[in-house]
Amino acid sequence: MSKQTKLSLDISLLKEYVVDSDLTAMQPHIDSVRSALLNRTCAGADFLGWLDLPWSVESELPNIKKIAAEIRDNADHLVSIGIGGSYLGARAAIDFLADPFLCNDRVLYLGHHIGSDYTASLLDFVMQKNVYVNVISKSGTATEPALAFRLLLQELSRKYSRDELRRRVIATTDDDEGVLRNMVKTEGYRSFVIADDIGGRFSVLSPVGLLPIAAAGYDIDALLAGARDMAHWCKSESDVLANDALKYAAARHTLYNKGKDVEIFSSFEPSAHYIAEWWKQLFGESEGKEEKGIFPTSASLTTDLHSLGQFMQEGTRTLFETFFTVGKTKTEVVIPAVDGDADDLNFLRDKTVEHVNRQAYIATKFAHYEGDLPNMTIEIPSRDEYSLGQLFYFFEFAVAISGLLLDVNPFNQPGVEAYKQNMFAILDKPGYEDKKETLLKLIKGE
Amino acid sequence: MSKQTKLSLDISLLKEYVVDSDLTAMQPHIDSVRSALLNRTCAGADFLGWLDLPWSVESELPNIKKIAAEIRDNADHLVSIGIGGSYLGARAAIDFLADPFLCNDRVLYLGHHIGSDYTASLLDFVMQKNVYVNVISKSGTATEPALAFRLLLQELSRKYSRDELRRRVIATTDDDEGVLRNMVKTEGYRSFVIADDIGGRFSVLSPVGLLPIAAAGYDIDALLAGARDMAHWCKSESDVLANDALKYAAARHTLYNKGKDVEIFSSFEPSAHYIAEWWKQLFGESEGKEEKGIFPTSASLTTDLHSLGQFMQEGTRTLFETFFTVGKTKTEVVIPAVDGDADDLNFLRDKTVEHVNRQAYIATKFAHYEGDLPNMTIEIPSRDEYSLGQLFYFFEFAVAISGLLLDVNPFNQPGVEAYKQNMFAILDKPGYEDKKETLLKLIKGE
Repeated sequence: MSKQTKLSLDISLLKEYVVDSDLTAMQPHIDSVRSALLNRTCAGADFLGWLDLPWSVESELPNIKKIAAEIRDNADHLVSIGIGGSYLGARAAIDFLADPFLCNDRVLYLGHHIGSDYTASLLDFVMQKNVYVNVISKSGTATEPALAFRLLLQELSRKYSRDELRRRVIATTDDDEGVLRNMVKTEGYRSFVIADDIGGRFSVLSPVGLLPIAAAGYDIDALLAGARDMAHWCKSESDVLANDALKYAAARHTLYNKGKDVEIFSSFEPSAHYIAEWWKQLFGESEGKEEKGIFPTSASLTTDLHSLGQFMQEGTRTLFETFFTVGKTKTEVVIPAVDGDADDLNFLRDKTVEHVNRQAYIATKFAHYEGDLPNMTIEIPSRDEYSLGQLFYFFEFAVAISGLLLDVNPFNQPGVEAYKQNMFAILDKPGYEDKKETLLKLIKGE
Repeated sequence: MSKQTKLSLDISLLKEYVVDSDLTAMQPHIDSVRSALLNRTCAGADFLGWLDLPWSVESELPNIKKIAAEIRDNADHLVSIGIGGSYLGARAAIDFLADPFLCNDRVLYLGHHIGSDYTASLLDFVMQKNVYVNVISKSGTATEPALAFRLLLQELSRKYSRDELRRRVIATTDDDEGVLRNMVKTEGYRSFVIADDIGGRFSVLSPVGLLPIAAAGYDIDALLAGARDMAHWCKSESDVLANDALKYAAARHTLYNKGKDVEIFSSFEPSAHYIAEWWKQLFGESEGKEEKGIFPTSASLTTDLHSLGQFMQEGTRTLFETFFTVGKTKTEVVIPAVDGDADDLNFLRDKTVEHVNRQAYIATKFAHYEGDLPNMTIEIPSRDEYSLGQLFYFFEFAVAISGLLLDVNPFNQPGVEAYKQNMFAILDKPGYEDKKETLLKLIKGE
C-alpha cells in the first residue's frame, strides 16, 4: 500500500509536551496492553468482535447489498431508527460522503432523541413519501428508538397494509433475545444480527452501519477494504513510533498525564461533523469512567476559529487539539481574477478553494502551536469510502489501546444506565417502583 | 410579565458547589462590575451598543421588513454569507424556529468555512434556483465570506444581468469604510450598517441577524419584544439572587474557582443545535483570554446521553452542565396503546412525546447530580420568537458580567487574529512578507 493512500498521523507540533523519548519510554506499557488486546486477555475481552469484523462481516454482505439495492430502487427514503452506536456510525459515513445540497437526505434519522416537534415533522413528512424502515437496537428496549418505531409503525399503517409494512421494515437486533427479535419472529420482518461481542460504538462496520450506508448508495466493499488494510497495519506493527494507532494512543496518554484533559477534534472538512460526533462517543464512552479520561469535544474549521478560536488561542491551557484533514477533496473550485480587485482578493487568483483551505489549516496549526495549544494531525487521503474505512478502524484500535493504558475497561459503559433507570422510574415503568421512591425523595430534597 | 412567559434559571442542583451564601458573598463584586457595565466605564466600553440594541434598532425595522418581504416573495432561497457573529445568530434563530423537514432551507449559508466540496455543491445548487444574497462582513476582508461572495457573484453573473444581480445583493457592513462598503458605493447594492460599537457575537439583534431571520419568515417584532423585556429585567435588578443573569454569571464564576473549567450546554430540544453554537462563541470568545476562562462545549440530549453520557456520568470531574429546556413544544404527539404490547411500551400509552422528553430531562439532571456533575437549568417558555429574544439578551448580559468578574475585557477577541495573520502570510497576501518569513522559519523548525 503506497503512502499516498494511507492515513497518516503527524505529532511534530506536540513537541514540548510529547517527544519521541516519551513515547519509547511507554513501549513496555504499550507492549503489555497490546498483547492483552490481541490475545484477548484484556479487560472487556468479551467485546472484541470488532477486531476481526472487517473480515467476519463478509458473509453478511450479499444480503446487505441485496436489501440496500431494493431500498434504493423502491423508496424515496430509508428511515433509520437508532441511537448512540446504532446511529452515529452510519450517519458519520453518509454525511461525510454525501453531496451537502443534493442527496444527503436519502436516509432520515429517527429515535436518536425524544424531540416532539422533530418527531411530528418527520411523521408528517414520511406520509408524503415512499419509505423503508431500518430499526436498529440490540435489545429493543432503549426508549428512544422503541418509541420512535412504535410511532412510525402507527403512522405508516395508515397508508401501508400490514403485509406491505412487513416488507418495508428491516430490523437489526440481537440474534435470539429481546423485544425487537420477538417482533421479528412474530411479524416476519427481515433482519440482521447485532453480535454479542460487538459494542454499539464499535459496530459501524457491522450490519448496524453497513445497511444504511449501502442504502444511501455508498460502496461498502471499499469501506471494508480500507478497514481491513488498517486492521492489518494496526495489528502487525508493535513499535510505538512506527504504528500510528499506538502512537496516537501514547501521545494522548502523555498529554493527559501532563494536565491536558480536553481533546478538540478539529476538522477542516465540513462534511466531517458526524465523524466528530462518532469519535466523541468512541473516546468518551470508552475512557470516561472511574473519574478518569480526556473529555472529547470538536470544532469545525475554519467556522469555529470565529467562535472557539479565541479560547483555543488564548484561554485556559488544559486543551490539546487533533486536526482532521482530507488530502484531496472531490471537487476543484478555481478562484477567478476580478477586474479592479474591489474585494482585495486577486492575490488568490487561479488558486483553488481547496488550496486556500489547506493553507488555513497550516496557518492554524502553527498559530495554535505558538499559542501553547499542542496539536497533532490525522489525515486521510481523500473523501471516499476506502479512506473512511481506514479511519474508523484506526480510531477503534487506538481507543482500545488508550483505554487500556488508562487502566479502564474500554468496552463497557456502566454510566449510561443512570439516566435510563431514573427515566423508567419516573415514567412508571413496571418493575421500577423502588427506584421511583428513591428518586422522588431526592427530588423533594429529603 | 407573568412567570409563565419568562425565562427562568434553576441552580438548585449545584448545591454542594454553589450555595446562596457563595452568591451573596459575591454581591459587592457583582455590584462593582454591573455599575461599570451600565455606566459604560468597564473594559471594552466602546463596544456596548448591544446594551440598548433592542430599542435602538427600531428605526431599521421598516427597511428590514420591506426587503425581507421582497426576498420571501421573489426568491426560493436567500444565500447568507458570513462567519462567526455574522453567521451564528441568524442560523441559531432560524434553525430553532424552523420545521426540520419542511422549510429550514429557505436560508442557505456560505462563507462560514472554506470547504471546497460544500462550496462547489452550493454553487451548482443555486444555479437551479431563484436566489438573493445577503453578504455580512464588517470590513469585507475576512477571507471566508469575501471569497464566498466573489465566487457566488461570478456564478450568478452567468444567469443574472449586472443590474439584476445588483438588485439581488444586500450588504450588511461598516457604514463608511472597508472593501465591502466600497463595493456598495460602486455597485449600488442596498445595504445595512454594522455599528462600530457592536461586536459580531453581540449582533444578532441588529440587521446582521434580523434580515436573514425576517427573510426566513420569522417574527422579528416578537424577537425584539422578548429582548426588550429581558433587557429591562437584567438592567433593573441588582440583587444577585433575584436577577437570573447575575446569578448565572456568579454561579459559573464560583464553579470555575472550584476547578470546574468545562461547561456543557445540554439541550433537550434538537432544534437548539445552533443556539448552542452561538452560545459557545459568545462565552468562549468573551472569556477565553489571558489563559483564563471556562471552556464552552455542548451536548444534544437525549442523543448524546448515548455518546458523551458515560463521560458526563463517571469521567474526569472537571465539568459542570447547563441544561437548556423549552417549556412548551409546538406539537403534541400522543403515544398509542398497542395490542399485545410487543415492544413493552404500553406503560407510556396516552402520554405525549413531549412528556417523555420532559421526564428524560428530570431523570438526567438527577442522575448527573448523583454522579457529582453539578448542573443548572435555563428554561424558556416556548419554542417561539419572544422566548428566543429573551434568551439572546439574557446570555449577552450574563457574559458581560461573567467576563468582567474574571477581570478580562469581554468585548475583544485579540486571539482570532493569529491564524488570519499566518494565513495571509502563507497565501502571499501583499503586505505580509515579513510575517511569511517568520512563519516559514517556524515551519522548517529553525
